[in-house]
Amino acid sequence: MSSFELEARAALMRVADTGDTTMGRLVASCGAIAAVDAVRGRMLPPAFVAQEMRQERATKLDQRLNTWHARMSVADPATDIAAGERSGARLIIPGSPEWPSQLDQLGPSRPLGLWLHGSADLRFSCLRSVSVVGARSATSYGTHVAAEFGIGLSEAGWTVVSGGAYGVDGAAHRGALAADSPTVVVLACGVDIAYPRGHLDLFTAVRDQGVVVSECPPGVHPTRARFLIRNRLIAALSRGTVVVEAALRSGALNTATHALALNRHLAAVPGPVTSVMSAGCHRLLRERKAVCVATPEEMIDLVGVLGDDLSPSPRSPVVPRDALNEVTSKVLDAVPSRGGAGPASIALAAGVPLDAALSSLGGLAAAGYVERVDKGWRLRKPASAAYRKHDVLPDPVDSSGADAFNEPPGPHDQTAPFSGSG
Amino acid sequence: MSSFELEARAALMRVADTGDTTMGRLVASCGAIAAVDAVRGRMLPPAFVAQEMRQERATKLDQRLNTWHARMSVADPATDIAAGERSGARLIIPGSPEWPSQLDQLGPSRPLGLWLHGSADLRFSCLRSVSVVGARSATSYGTHVAAEFGIGLSEAGWTVVSGGAYGVDGAAHRGALAADSPTVVVLACGVDIAYPRGHLDLFTAVRDQGVVVSECPPGVHPTRARFLIRNRLIAALSRGTVVVEAALRSGALNTATHALALNRHLAAVPGPVTSVMSAGCHRLLRERKAVCVATPEEMIDLVGVLGDDLSPSPRSPVVPRDALNEVTSKVLDAVPSRGGAGPASIALAAGVPLDAALSSLGGLAAAGYVERVDKGWRLRKPASAAYRKHDVLPDPVDSSGADAFNEPPGPHDQTAPFSGSG
Repeated sequence: MSSFELEARAALMRVADTGDTTMGRLVASCGAIAAVDAVRGRMLPPAFVAQEMRQERATKLDQRLNTWHARMSVADPATDIAAGERSGARLIIPGSPEWPSQLDQLGPSRPLGLWLHGSADLRFSCLRSVSVVGARSATSYGTHVAAEFGIGLSEAGWTVVSGGAYGVDGAAHRGALAADSPTVVVLACGVDIAYPRGHLDLFTAVRDQGVVVSECPPGVHPTRARFLIRNRLIAALSRGTVVVEAALRSGALNTATHALALNRHLAAVPGPVTSVMSAGCHRLLRERKAVCVATPEEMIDLVGVLGDDLSPSPRSPVVPRDALNEVTSKVLDAVPSRGGAGPASIALAAGVPLDAALSSLGGLAAAGYVERVDKGWRLRKPASAAYRKHDVLPDPVDSSGADAFNEPPGPHDQTAPFSGSG
Repeated sequence: MSSFELEARAALMRVADTGDTTMGRLVASCGAIAAVDAVRGRMLPPAFVAQEMRQERATKLDQRLNTWHARMSVADPATDIAAGERSGARLIIPGSPEWPSQLDQLGPSRPLGLWLHGSADLRFSCLRSVSVVGARSATSYGTHVAAEFGIGLSEAGWTVVSGGAYGVDGAAHRGALAADSPTVVVLACGVDIAYPRGHLDLFTAVRDQGVVVSECPPGVHPTRARFLIRNRLIAALSRGTVVVEAALRSGALNTATHALALNRHLAAVPGPVTSVMSAGCHRLLRERKAVCVATPEEMIDLVGVLGDDLSPSPRSPVVPRDALNEVTSKVLDAVPSRGGAGPASIALAAGVPLDAALSSLGGLAAAGYVERVDKGWRLRKPASAAYRKHDVLPDPVDSSGADAFNEPPGPHDQTAPFSGSG
């Protein structure tokens, strides 16, 4: 890695707006060092100009060059690099060992370089990473879920990437820190600027344990445009993005759009439909742009290696009645809850032969489901069997719960044998 | 419609279990009257037997016939019909004017007949109908949303179909009643049985304004099996089903499975991922079996006529800054919030010519965005413009909000020009 290349890119980072695709194409066509010379000499390579003239916005090339030239005259890349390194930061460029090659997918908007500040290796940290994004003005539900995702992803060995903002971003980073994992903050300002200022301590902790990233030179303050262009880095660094909370007009949806454009996985966490802070997530789900995820495990299932990172499928509770065979189940259904019925009428109602009914009634009585009364058989007052999860047969009989007595045992909370939800 | 046919089907409704597909095929092959004769004479038509022998469960045909025969000996269809009509109910069968022909899609499990009790015409009510289903043990969120759907669907001229249970069902019915619309309760017991008993008043109100439906003869009590088999009717009567709240093991998911099997629309309402009562909805969304709907309008968009019943797309709020042109927007971004900067340095930072910057600064000052200070120009303390929805330019300046002063104006809550979310 030549120091000329590093210095040339540091100069161009001062000269071009972040994410300037014209500069990206210039550097791609002639290299950073020649690009610096071209801007200094106010003379773009003819081949590049010819290529740009075929673009739509070609007419603005002169104006762009004038701006670059004017900014170049005040740029001092050597001082930038020295000051950055003095503060503990480092500049990486494409080809550096720590450069995350997944950024190459950004094409001409690939950053010219990245300033990093922190102990973690960016490339390694992002190999298995998920971007957790959402509203600054998150609800307590949003920050709770973001923290759960931060912790859960980290504990499973996944790095959390986010923007370091208030609300969802901050909660996700803090969750990762709590799980003793590196986390990646992508700022829209210089890595030496704490924005928002209230996150100064958070950024300090991230530098210790993870890494703070920016494509802006040190000292640069955030602007609206830089926030939006920064979002592409959050989407591009990770294998997938999950939107935890987002109103209909939210920067997180901008990150989601970048994730889709880059063909990365996109997920959204649902929330109450009564909350405007979940409306953006629900729109992503409704338009089938995002996959619904409720847990960090489900997110890992989405972005992970097929088979290796499977989420445990949410399991329905097994209830004692599930263990009854078909005939016994029919007989139990046919036993009245009040009064009583003889074995013959129970067999008729259940549609089973009398001997099968008699044998089933004996078993059901032994297991505490039914009891013999003057008029024949009736149900014993059931415990709320459908809601008790970890019992096995026989079902202990609960003598309380007179209300439950008049209800058939939990039909609405039973999965049918032919239900596809299993 | 022959009264023999009506009486024959009333007899078979006593003889066969609800949804018995063997009986459905028998009636389809030889008609209800011949089926009654066959059961009475304990002799099935040879052609039918041959057809059934090709089915898997053929061996049980004798046992089935024995049960039917035994039950036939105690069935009294004429009394059933007379008693039902005395109570104000009516029996309809395929071919009756009020028969909802969409039930034909159920094939051999199509009900033999339906008992109705209520003022509404079932066929007409179900032409534009939505099934709203969910947990009996719904949360307050679930019943709130169910009631909103009941009201919203009804006000838009759609009939709410549900199961009359506690929780989501009841709330949806009550919402429909509140909107002065007919609503359809599909019971798993006779239409003369109030189950659950606490919904006696609800069912009375539904009879006045809508209709109570059952495929069980009067006097029949609900069983677990009848609840599950009833769910196919809820799915089959309407154009689509929406699951408002459902745990992982819920009868509502059984109804959802029926809706999918019948190729009807299926939707789910998201909820907090922290609520087990929404876990079933989230699984339907995650597996892309259901469409995410947050409002009754979105449900109508799904089941309605393409173009006629479009839901208004959720709109992002428009903020004053949206009205700024590109150059002015860049200039505004380049004006510092503290200190001050001269026009030349602002033009350089914004990447626009000096004269354009000067003209933009004049306009921005007039609109109250920036102000002239000793050192040049700086931002005026902004009102929280990004969050005020209905203003137009110029933006009134709010002299309070010192905290907001240090924040760039809402970058995270701005949709990028290239964002797909519009």
